[in-house]
Amino acid sequence: MRGAVLHAPGDVRVEEREDPRILVPTDAVIRLSATCVCGSDLWPYRGIEKITGPSPIGHEYVGIVEEVGSEVSNVRPGQFVVGSFFASDNTCEICRAGYQSSCTHREGMGALGAQAQYLRVPLADGTLVATPDVPSDDLVPGILAASDVLGTGWFGAVAAEAGPGKTVAVVGDGAVGLLGVLAAKQLGADRIIAMSRHEPRQKLALEYGATDIVTERGDEGVARIKDLTNGLGAHSVIEAVGTQESMMQAIRSTRPGGHVGYVGVAHDVELPGEELFFSHVHLHGGPAPVRRFLPELIDLIWNRQIDPGKVFDLSLPLEQAAEGYKAMDERRAIKALLHV
Amino acid sequence: MRGAVLHAPGDVRVEEREDPRILVPTDAVIRLSATCVCGSDLWPYRGIEKITGPSPIGHEYVGIVEEVGSEVSNVRPGQFVVGSFFASDNTCEICRAGYQSSCTHREGMGALGAQAQYLRVPLADGTLVATPDVPSDDLVPGILAASDVLGTGWFGAVAAEAGPGKTVAVVGDGAVGLLGVLAAKQLGADRIIAMSRHEPRQKLALEYGATDIVTERGDEGVARIKDLTNGLGAHSVIEAVGTQESMMQAIRSTRPGGHVGYVGVAHDVELPGEELFFSHVHLHGGPAPVRRFLPELIDLIWNRQIDPGKVFDLSLPLEQAAEGYKAMDERRAIKALLHV
Repeated sequence: MRGAVLHAPGDVRVEEREDPRILVPTDAVIRLSATCVCGSDLWPYRGIEKITGPSPIGHEYVGIVEEVGSEVSNVRPGQFVVGSFFASDNTCEICRAGYQSSCTHREGMGALGAQAQYLRVPLADGTLVATPDVPSDDLVPGILAASDVLGTGWFGAVAAEAGPGKTVAVVGDGAVGLLGVLAAKQLGADRIIAMSRHEPRQKLALEYGATDIVTERGDEGVARIKDLTNGLGAHSVIEAVGTQESMMQAIRSTRPGGHVGYVGVAHDVELPGEELFFSHVHLHGGPAPVRRFLPELIDLIWNRQIDPGKVFDLSLPLEQAAEGYKAMDERRAIKALLHV
Repeated sequence: MRGAVLHAPGDVRVEEREDPRILVPTDAVIRLSATCVCGSDLWPYRGIEKITGPSPIGHEYVGIVEEVGSEVSNVRPGQFVVGSFFASDNTCEICRAGYQSSCTHREGMGALGAQAQYLRVPLADGTLVATPDVPSDDLVPGILAASDVLGTGWFGAVAAEAGPGKTVAVVGDGAVGLLGVLAAKQLGADRIIAMSRHEPRQKLALEYGATDIVTERGDEGVARIKDLTNGLGAHSVIEAVGTQESMMQAIRSTRPGGHVGYVGVAHDVELPGEELFFSHVHLHGGPAPVRRFLPELIDLIWNRQIDPGKVFDLSLPLEQAAEGYKAMDERRAIKALLHV
């Protein structure tokens, strides 16, 4: 089959890879309909996360079940399915508490390389969720977004306790931040402040429900959020970047007793204990337990109540994956869909 | 009047201080019945927190209202009252959300020096809570504990979401940690693991409701907590120390999706962002909004349902405050009460 392989920073190639097959009875193999490039794929692409050699890449996927192992009973060949970036059994105590991305048997999907024609999905019963039917083409981007960025933005909003009566600020205008805006809106937030200085992203944020746009960053961004909230800070702040600056901007934009939901993968972040202590914020986040939200998200997309697929502003054939990386790296695209 | 003054690290003296008086119409002046030495007083006593010159000290207090300003209506002279370490208006948006220790008008009580015969209490209407009557002597230590250490341990347990069905671990066996055990028990936790290597403290922890004692610290302590919780970690961990080691011990002892309630004042703590991200814990804490809990705590103490006063294992006249500091610094005493 054909699949993307990261050879070195900046060097993604689509090449022949071995066809995946069922290795253990709980596996499934799916034929992908679409996959995409994630903001977190840019970390190794930029050389910030080291790779030790040529590495299959990609962890977002939707497609048709091709084959299932003998112990798989929740999905069957021919079904259209979506899964997320950690395979999970969905039965252990941690999964049952809603933290499938910390499942005691979790397996990272990135190493299996979802930017490809086929993908082996471990723990298929726990990991995959079938849609009601094979979706029409226009629904595919939305369902693909549920695989990671929508689920991640949603978790950010849930972790930040966005809801009625709340003012929510969103740090980060990538796909996750924008879908954090959408999630906050769906969860009933009164006011949603998107922090963005890029016009096309501001536009999508407003479409998704943002009520205010703040273009300032860092201390000035914090001051603007305070200005907009009687000097107190937002009730809920979604952090969707993962840098020291963005984390501190999120914490400082939150009022005492408020909630920071952080979903940007932390890189070289050190939180000062004393400032955090006196900030009085709640801090929660990490790799989103997308599986927790998938049934609800599929339902919202299927019924056309939300359209998270709009974050894909570039669509390319899998063979042109390298261009997708380049466009996202240069911030020419919010998110690149790869059709297979 | 007589009052304690910290002159330099290790040098606490009880000396003549100016009598406090009503400065603004929202003040009250109280005549103290008892005060005490806090673990956090040991930071400047040990020279870890710098002082710029002789400083009145102490922030825990109970006593009789002596005089109130013209705008004070919730308490009146003759009433026995308790307050906490931050004066708060109890009416601003932050107070109403239950974060009185981040009140928009908060004033720290430490600088006013509660280890004294009299104390000016700003924002008396919001800060002070009267007991149903003047308490009998045996109730005074318990009510005094509510002023800080009980309220702080209670907030730690609430922030850690201790409750039915939960296993709670407590890092720190000072008065706050021990009262965190008591709080977890009152909140209905199933299992309470006290981390302590000091026999008298272990004994009090068991009396307060601990079901298990873990004597190991650091990585070994974490491993023991994992052993006791099917390898998953505790649902709720109360951190009541404030050092890098204790914070990391608390975070690592918590299962994914679990809650860390941290109430030890953070000193030189830096939290590694990536580890925190993948830990999947909820982190909440800070200076306890004791005022939120005071009415409920007074009730429990008044009705003799809890006896937090047992943490005072040393009782001295105010004049011997220096000996109280010394005994706590040398860990000969858990907590020293100073009767006035």
